Amino acid sequence: MSANPEPRDPAGETLLSAAELEARLQQIGRERYHSLHPFHKLLHGGRLNRGQVQAWVLNRFYYQSRIPIKDATLLSRCEDLELRREWRKRIEEHDGWPAGAGRERNEGGIERWLVLAEAVGLPRDYVVSTEGLLPATRFAVDAYVHFVREKSLLEAVASSLTELFAPKIHEERIAGLLQHYPFANERTIAYFKRRLKEAPEDVKFGLAYVIREARTRAQQEQVLAAVRFKTDVLWAQLDALHHAYVEPGHVPPGAFVPEGPQEWQASA
Amino acid sequence: MSANPEPRDPAGETLLSAAELEARLQQIGRERYHSLHPFHKLLHGGRLNRGQVQAWVLNRFYYQSRIPIKDATLLSRCEDLELRREWRKRIEEHDGWPAGAGRERNEGGIERWLVLAEAVGLPRDYVVSTEGLLPATRFAVDAYVHFVREKSLLEAVASSLTELFAPKIHEERIAGLLQHYPFANERTIAYFKRRLKEAPEDVKFGLAYVIREARTRAQQEQVLAAVRFKTDVLWAQLDALHHAYVEPGHVPPGAFVPEGPQEWQASA
Repeated sequence: MSANPEPRDPAGETLLSAAELEARLQQIGRERYHSLHPFHKLLHGGRLNRGQVQAWVLNRFYYQSRIPIKDATLLSRCEDLELRREWRKRIEEHDGWPAGAGRERNEGGIERWLVLAEAVGLPRDYVVSTEGLLPATRFAVDAYVHFVREKSLLEAVASSLTELFAPKIHEERIAGLLQHYPFANERTIAYFKRRLKEAPEDVKFGLAYVIREARTRAQQEQVLAAVRFKTDVLWAQLDALHHAYVEPGHVPPGAFVPEGPQEWQASA
Repeated sequence: MSANPEPRDPAGETLLSAAELEARLQQIGRERYHSLHPFHKLLHGGRLNRGQVQAWVLNRFYYQSRIPIKDATLLSRCEDLELRREWRKRIEEHDGWPAGAGRERNEGGIERWLVLAEAVGLPRDYVVSTEGLLPATRFAVDAYVHFVREKSLLEAVASSLTELFAPKIHEERIAGLLQHYPFANERTIAYFKRRLKEAPEDVKFGLAYVIREARTRAQQEQVLAAVRFKTDVLWAQLDALHHAYVEPGHVPPGAFVPEGPQEWQASA
């Protein structure tokens, strides 16, 4: 009798090691993360006009606005105090807090996004109303909230792990926006700067959680499927933007229609 | 004192008459129904190749497959026996029934769709697996199921009223498919023929229901918003198809990629 060199789960299936699981997650990022999408290449390369950037900021706001709802949904399903404590930080970061109790005021990620929206020429109220949103954006983002409500807690946590791939795209975006667009400055791109710091902290916890809690191969596969699902959610949003605003004549009924001069003006 | 000529609701708002409400519903159809979408014009005009028609059939199958789930969801929320009795017919029509009890066998709408899928060269198992589906299709269709689960019963019923506009598109489609595509014959387009008969029966009940149950102006506006929402669900599916399969190079990761000869062959 020789010792079995491969760990197996209770169903007799081969378990992935922590390193293998993480390698497969990284592979999903290399193949499917929305950094590969042509719309992002246009955005980061300075090849989008004013209305196209407005459409991106307007639609992406809906994603931002649902994130605390998504995270509160996860919290509401969670009986593990340690996980709750860790996860609630995400809601705080996004919704912000006033100065006090030894902490500086944090206007929050949603407010930082609205600063960007105003900088590209969108009225704040219009953005908040979500009037003008592409229906496909709403469906994709709501699919994410529903996923977190309806799937296992493990899958809900796993769906956040696209944060593994986020710092690279944020770096590209910060550099690209500052280089190419007159609206971009330290104040207006603060959202991305902050995420550059937050995302690695958040993902460290999430990754350790799924490595620990996925105890069968089937659960490990669920973790991978959850991350693929999330890359679909992100990709579909850019497909909808690309179809409606890059290719002429495809804005769906009721959605935002850019107005006024579309070339960029040097900022005042 | 003169009688108020306009009926008002308990909040003092002007109520729309039945004729006005129906006229506004018809107006939504004229402005937003997916019969206006360029993808349908290509389909009905014979300008789609084999892979593009396959993509349409494959993606639209997911919509078909969720309809009984959507209707069962409505049923599960419904305390009105008359409404339940009427509504369950929709599930039966879609899922089918065996011969017996004085009724001829009905293979059901889903089976009729699978006959169409096989006729355009898609393996039945592949279609049923929903592997290869565009994520945006899944999100849009799931948004419809969630709407019916989460909104008021009135809004859930109202969201079916795009059936008001369906006979015209089915007539166009039957004529267009028969004229332009070798796969089209009485057997393979039976789904649309049957819907031509069912949809007007279904919608008669739904329309009477919302006219009777929308007792305030706010509820009448909810009815109109539900129909607009539904037109968004239908439109978004075609936008996703158009972007992925009409414009070259936009198939998202993991979605169906057409294979083999793309020109139509005369049927054997």
